[in-house]
Amino acid sequence: MSEKKRRAGAAAGSSASKKPRVSSATSYAESLRTKLRPDASILATLRSLASACSKSKPAGSSSSASKALAEDDPAASYIVVADQDSASVTSRINRLVLAAARSILSGRGFSFAVPSRASSNQVYLPDLDRIVLVRRESARPFANVATARKATITARVLSLVHAVLRRGIHVTKRDLFYTDVKLFGDQAQSDAVLDDVSCMLGCTRSSLHVVASEKGVVVGRLTFADDGDRIDCTRMGVGGKAIPPNIDRVSGIESDALFILLVEKDAAFMRLAEDRFYNRFPCIILTAKGQPDVATRLFLRRLKVELKLPVLALVDSDPYGLKILSVYMCGSKNMSYDSANLTTPDIKWLGVRPSDLDKYRVPEQCRLPMTDHDIKVGKELLEEDFVKQNEGWVKELETMLRTRQKAEIQALSSFGFQYLTEVYLPLKLQQQDWI
Amino acid sequence: MSEKKRRAGAAAGSSASKKPRVSSATSYAESLRTKLRPDASILATLRSLASACSKSKPAGSSSSASKALAEDDPAASYIVVADQDSASVTSRINRLVLAAARSILSGRGFSFAVPSRASSNQVYLPDLDRIVLVRRESARPFANVATARKATITARVLSLVHAVLRRGIHVTKRDLFYTDVKLFGDQAQSDAVLDDVSCMLGCTRSSLHVVASEKGVVVGRLTFADDGDRIDCTRMGVGGKAIPPNIDRVSGIESDALFILLVEKDAAFMRLAEDRFYNRFPCIILTAKGQPDVATRLFLRRLKVELKLPVLALVDSDPYGLKILSVYMCGSKNMSYDSANLTTPDIKWLGVRPSDLDKYRVPEQCRLPMTDHDIKVGKELLEEDFVKQNEGWVKELETMLRTRQKAEIQALSSFGFQYLTEVYLPLKLQQQDWI
Repeated sequence: MSEKKRRAGAAAGSSASKKPRVSSATSYAESLRTKLRPDASILATLRSLASACSKSKPAGSSSSASKALAEDDPAASYIVVADQDSASVTSRINRLVLAAARSILSGRGFSFAVPSRASSNQVYLPDLDRIVLVRRESARPFANVATARKATITARVLSLVHAVLRRGIHVTKRDLFYTDVKLFGDQAQSDAVLDDVSCMLGCTRSSLHVVASEKGVVVGRLTFADDGDRIDCTRMGVGGKAIPPNIDRVSGIESDALFILLVEKDAAFMRLAEDRFYNRFPCIILTAKGQPDVATRLFLRRLKVELKLPVLALVDSDPYGLKILSVYMCGSKNMSYDSANLTTPDIKWLGVRPSDLDKYRVPEQCRLPMTDHDIKVGKELLEEDFVKQNEGWVKELETMLRTRQKAEIQALSSFGFQYLTEVYLPLKLQQQDWI
Repeated sequence: MSEKKRRAGAAAGSSASKKPRVSSATSYAESLRTKLRPDASILATLRSLASACSKSKPAGSSSSASKALAEDDPAASYIVVADQDSASVTSRINRLVLAAARSILSGRGFSFAVPSRASSNQVYLPDLDRIVLVRRESARPFANVATARKATITARVLSLVHAVLRRGIHVTKRDLFYTDVKLFGDQAQSDAVLDDVSCMLGCTRSSLHVVASEKGVVVGRLTFADDGDRIDCTRMGVGGKAIPPNIDRVSGIESDALFILLVEKDAAFMRLAEDRFYNRFPCIILTAKGQPDVATRLFLRRLKVELKLPVLALVDSDPYGLKILSVYMCGSKNMSYDSANLTTPDIKWLGVRPSDLDKYRVPEQCRLPMTDHDIKVGKELLEEDFVKQNEGWVKELETMLRTRQKAEIQALSSFGFQYLTEVYLPLKLQQQDWI
């Protein structure tokens, strides 16, 4: 055994003096267990966090913020779409089609005014902490060789959405495409026009009843109705409840949680669910299993807005983990017009942070060298406004780029399979160690 | 409109005479609705199917079949691992380690007898309708430069599995890797040894409490307990219940379904869930959202064995859809030693089958040309034993390769978003149109 230790030290090389050896790291990791105060004390910390969060109006997440850029006001310089009920969307379509019909009858033909979704048109608004779309419309006349086809597709998509809403069902983008393959040609075209229609009508894609496939799961102190069925997420075993693809069928959200724990990967989710972490520290645990999908982002936002709970994130300590946070918080560029409904600002970065690697003495062998691509992505993130805004994030990212090391959440397993739920997270919560 | 029709016909080209035009296809598709008998009549068909299935002993799926190749019998020529409870696995590990200790004390050092999992060792057994592993063990002595490292890793994995079982928790392969990155080097090595250990102990990977991440969802006429929580899958809304990663925490499976509907993709799953198809035709609907993961395969097998229900599959009409069926039915090559627990023989191919494309007059535009790779995979499938066994499947595959056309389940959306649930599936069930 001592032979093994010696070899471990030798293998770590010159950095061994600074970086911990495996065995000493393990005993240090165990020593952190003694730092833990009783749960009641940690819970008090969490309660004050939760109550602070429910009082403060979360920047940009309140509906008034969306209203400030109301999509009905053509004078507004930004396009922000909003959730609308079926009746409202239907009547918007009716108005659009009536206007087209009147235009045709008056001999002027018809044309749609379509907002431009070009990336040059997408800007980050620091006040709102979101990417939004600058209002700049272009005409899409039917009587023009260049736009006749797109105008036809637009009319067809409007009619299909109308039919879906009338039937009260939900469909996928793929379903939509297959209703008229001949016209659409390929799915990229019907998808693009669907986004156009969403902007034109000023409503979210989920208001159009066109849904994305589901990927996320949720477990913990949450009850809600999915299409009328009452779901108690403390009684969903280890597997959890699949997050519904159609957010408008979700209602009656109730919870006694003190925070929402957003987890990047399902391995960590499984550990938390099996250990019933939410019973020790009342929380709602959710994951999109990697890159966040639209359904999970919508669901998280609904939880945040309705429950007014703080959101703490547990992601890998690599640029990709931060990128995932950015998608939850600021949205992705190609859905910028819908950012108000998809984004959850004010997510706290709990861990695993680059500074945690030394702080928790994660063994050298459990850290991975960053690839050239990682470093490139990391440097790009340093230039992003949403990172620059948060001094703590900049520092962490600089640490990551300086040490050129990354680590997964699972790296904590080197201290024992349940170290994550028994020591790391409780200590993080106790020390309010989020930024 | 007639102008449009004419153009559609012209575009379809010379095949227009044989292949349906869009509009006539739609009206034909609608005419099929009139062929539907009352649901009561279809239900009677399904009831007789279900009762036939519960009486017949499904080939190879009964536990007696596994017993015939009992893993405890060293004389048996095939290795078939079985589910074991924690106490049994722990005592098997203890016996292994005691034997090693005795060997060391007697001055002979120690060595593990590890079954070979090389692909040359994997054979398809027509009688069992499964891929299994030929029993051929090789020694892995510690006192040999070539195997010392692997023997050490094997000992370490045995000790880790022992610890996991003692704590009564479940971990992922990734967790296991991170407990000793220095020793394992990379995850491929700990994963490989884990499979070795599974074969050595004669128990499934899930018996070792090392679980795969979950991907599947289930909805419909099924109740079960997930880690003690009672789950009613008729009350899981549209999102469904996530299939638990640890099958051994699933118990108390009950159902009044007449069949299990296995769906390839989540878009079709969503349609079925939203339309509550299982209330019209009592069934359990499940999907792995593409390539089946271990958790979904284990879950399907458990349902099939315990409920003795027929399994009908709804997959894309392409070689990939058939490949997915083969994984559910015969297992994948690299898990061959575990095939008895992972496979569900006797799955019926309901649709979408190559012959359906003409039978349901799926418009030419909704069919896709097969790529060279598709054709290659299709031809390979024709050589596979599990396809050759079923004359109907061979014919369908030959049709696919002759027409060089494929189609997704979604192609049925061209007849209306709910055509799948309102016409196609009910008619299939009524006509007992599965092979």
